Amino acid sequence: MAQFSAEDIQSAQSEFRRNLINSATGFKSVSLIGTANKEGETNLAIFSQIIHLGASPALVGILFRPHTVVRHTLENIIATKSFTINHIDADNYREAHHTSARWDESEFISCGFELSYVDGIGAPFVKGAPVQIGLKYEQKHDLTINGTHLIIGSIQYLNIADEAISEDGFIDLESLGVVTCSGLDSYHTTLKLARLSYAKADHQPKDIT
Amino acid sequence: MAQFSAEDIQSAQSEFRRNLINSATGFKSVSLIGTANKEGETNLAIFSQIIHLGASPALVGILFRPHTVVRHTLENIIATKSFTINHIDADNYREAHHTSARWDESEFISCGFELSYVDGIGAPFVKGAPVQIGLKYEQKHDLTINGTHLIIGSIQYLNIADEAISEDGFIDLESLGVVTCSGLDSYHTTLKLARLSYAKADHQPKDIT
Repeated sequence: MAQFSAEDIQSAQSEFRRNLINSATGFKSVSLIGTANKEGETNLAIFSQIIHLGASPALVGILFRPHTVVRHTLENIIATKSFTINHIDADNYREAHHTSARWDESEFISCGFELSYVDGIGAPFVKGAPVQIGLKYEQKHDLTINGTHLIIGSIQYLNIADEAISEDGFIDLESLGVVTCSGLDSYHTTLKLARLSYAKADHQPKDIT
Repeated sequence: MAQFSAEDIQSAQSEFRRNLINSATGFKSVSLIGTANKEGETNLAIFSQIIHLGASPALVGILFRPHTVVRHTLENIIATKSFTINHIDADNYREAHHTSARWDESEFISCGFELSYVDGIGAPFVKGAPVQIGLKYEQKHDLTINGTHLIIGSIQYLNIADEAISEDGFIDLESLGVVTCSGLDSYHTTLKLARLSYAKADHQPKDIT
């Protein structure tokens, strides 16, 4: 086994540390965030720091790195109060990764994603994305410990292929080809082990079929 | 396609809404959090709301539901300033899921996980877990919008199978059988598509091999 202390981590070469710590916390959701500025110029950016905050009200959190340089997505969300989350699948993860390069024009154009709009949601969606979520900006929490920002949005709109929604509301993301990522740059599809029943002390969890 | 407005979501049956919104944000990391109270009584609980907050310093965030009932993990972290994150693999995800039942004794015993300890880390680890992270409690942010709590910990110790660490620091979680989850109860292994090079505008991302 390889063991690292806090000192080992802090004194490691920065690229090594970045890869190590980014992959240490496990597999992550990875999605394209669509925004526009007040002039209507669109932006599309890949994010893996997305977290479920609650179902009622339906809230999502996104962690942004310190706002010490231009961050179009963060600025657009605050300016227009609107953003979209669009899932990535095995057919377009390369183009999705490419949105993180420095582009002069909109990543929708540079990386070949088609736009779509929904009534009442200002920000643009990725047309054909297997899951599209439209959100309203609610709050920003500044995490003073390292200068990052947690943006909280409320879900205003959800669009999912019918056949992927179970009777109990579960979305079968795997059947839609939705990818997960690890670290900064590794993309994976999934292989289902099982859905397990609500855990009780008097019996083993059963498979939900 | 199935479309849901904010009103559709809020008026849905609560189990349907919980499953829908918990699975909407994509695949998640899922891990066992080990803690002990001041008397040394251990606790082990499964969490999927874990987020990478930064690499330097190495920080992790965990989202807790509102502290309106007894929450042993949260209380132990605040009382002892120590907790561990232990990844789950395809061999023990059923036992890991079972920790979420209401147990009288420690989940280490009830669910059959062996304890291990590391010098300088007060909280217990899951022996044999493919990735073990020891953390020090740093901060709690109360998210007033829905009463949840974001706990921030700094990484003090990291233990990973040697063969899973690439030269550049990337941890090959897939080779260790680490699982991801979706929704509240669905567990998955992964199938790697590719690691992609740092994105630049003048060429397509290349595979990192």
